[in-house]
Amino acid sequence: MNYETLYSEIRRKGSFLCVGLDTDIHKIPEHLRCEEYPLWSFNRRIIDATAPFCVAYKPNTAFYEAHGAKGWKELEMTVDYIKKEYPEILVICDAKRGDIGNTAGLYARAFYESMNADAVTLAPYMGSDSIAPFLDYDGKWSIVLAMTSNPSAEDFETLGLSEGTPLYERIIRQTMSFVEKNYGPSKERLMFVVGATRAQMLAKIREICPDNFLLVPGVGAQGGSLEEVARYGLNSSCGLLVNSSRGIIYASKGEDFAQAAAAEAEKLATQMKTILG
Amino acid sequence: MNYETLYSEIRRKGSFLCVGLDTDIHKIPEHLRCEEYPLWSFNRRIIDATAPFCVAYKPNTAFYEAHGAKGWKELEMTVDYIKKEYPEILVICDAKRGDIGNTAGLYARAFYESMNADAVTLAPYMGSDSIAPFLDYDGKWSIVLAMTSNPSAEDFETLGLSEGTPLYERIIRQTMSFVEKNYGPSKERLMFVVGATRAQMLAKIREICPDNFLLVPGVGAQGGSLEEVARYGLNSSCGLLVNSSRGIIYASKGEDFAQAAAAEAEKLATQMKTILG
Repeated sequence: MNYETLYSEIRRKGSFLCVGLDTDIHKIPEHLRCEEYPLWSFNRRIIDATAPFCVAYKPNTAFYEAHGAKGWKELEMTVDYIKKEYPEILVICDAKRGDIGNTAGLYARAFYESMNADAVTLAPYMGSDSIAPFLDYDGKWSIVLAMTSNPSAEDFETLGLSEGTPLYERIIRQTMSFVEKNYGPSKERLMFVVGATRAQMLAKIREICPDNFLLVPGVGAQGGSLEEVARYGLNSSCGLLVNSSRGIIYASKGEDFAQAAAAEAEKLATQMKTILG
Repeated sequence: MNYETLYSEIRRKGSFLCVGLDTDIHKIPEHLRCEEYPLWSFNRRIIDATAPFCVAYKPNTAFYEAHGAKGWKELEMTVDYIKKEYPEILVICDAKRGDIGNTAGLYARAFYESMNADAVTLAPYMGSDSIAPFLDYDGKWSIVLAMTSNPSAEDFETLGLSEGTPLYERIIRQTMSFVEKNYGPSKERLMFVVGATRAQMLAKIREICPDNFLLVPGVGAQGGSLEEVARYGLNSSCGLLVNSSRGIIYASKGEDFAQAAAAEAEKLATQMKTILG
């Protein structure tokens, strides 16, 4: 999916919501836990209920890997279902992968060929080798961790470099240059993760990468504010995908869980429509 | 597996070899490719042939994920087999995971409960939250990326901080302090990845963490030298796990692949015995 298609879907729905499919067997309604594929059964209903209000889904691979090969199969079933039923919705595998070049190529194959995801989140520590194999796929997105939403993001991400900037800024600038030198306009295939709990930093990050989409987790359960994120992060093509996971998918533990999720998604989408104006 | 058990196994075998199970369907012998579980069929024979010469196996998850749920099952079969047949050998899942706390806990569950691995490699960018859930398991090892073997390791890992040290040094020091403050002696559950292609840096790293094991990839195909690694990295309890993948497991493409792998592993183990003296 390219930049223009993503932006037109945002305009059509008046929403830049990403629903995080962090599907935890201990948190889904009890009546689903005895099904053969409980994560998938839950996801399918959540997806059908929330699809009118969002432009992206983001399953986090950890929640599926915790169940071994069967969990991985449920992740595949989830991605397949979205791409078949709602091909206009972006599927982001939140995998935070990063490895040496030939190995990164196998991860890219895992998410872009064995699975049909549109985007993968990537850890930047090992540098450009570990990102390039993902960038080699046209029409797919690499989403690089810049400033994350967790408390220990300040352990290393914000460290001051001798050149005067914090580490995360250097990562953004250097990754953009790498992409622009080798693949053309970075906004077409590169996004960055910026936690909603760091809304003030968004203004600075927006200066560095005015055109790229930012994937913003941390609204809701983690305490980030949608208004603040929009104030500092919006650009003329929206440029934001704001994720909410727990606040939507666990809105109810009862048999009405899908309707409750839809109501929460709609609430956020309505705020987003107002923000987009 | 604790420090003492690992060291006694190194003494018993006179080897600190780790065999990397980077099992690529395109590189295994042709006669295995039509089997139902080709990666597993290959691995089982490689393991039986090389077990006398090594103290650790390191499957890299990317090679299995590239085949989806079926590949993940072959990874599970591989780990199960090693822990059942060769319980004295350390199993390292080279997964380079790293996520916010609650999600990292699910990855830890994936590798330490759903699978029975002894160790996982971890990406440090997101800080201590992303490592703590792995450290919570007694008898398991967290292996944090410090200085990797790939060319673009110099993009960010070696960046100079305003405090005067390179980033990777700060990561080593701070992770050690975090472990020592919360879990006791860091050598009992924390290792670092240091690429063999950076042998000179090993001397400096050995000063910072004199007692911890270092996992050293990059000997063989990537060009690192065993003698150099040993010169700068050995400590009084060995303190090294030197990995070779391609040089061992693809030593032959014919029906004699397992014997050829054993011969390569034995060659390295013999050099290691001399080094250990």
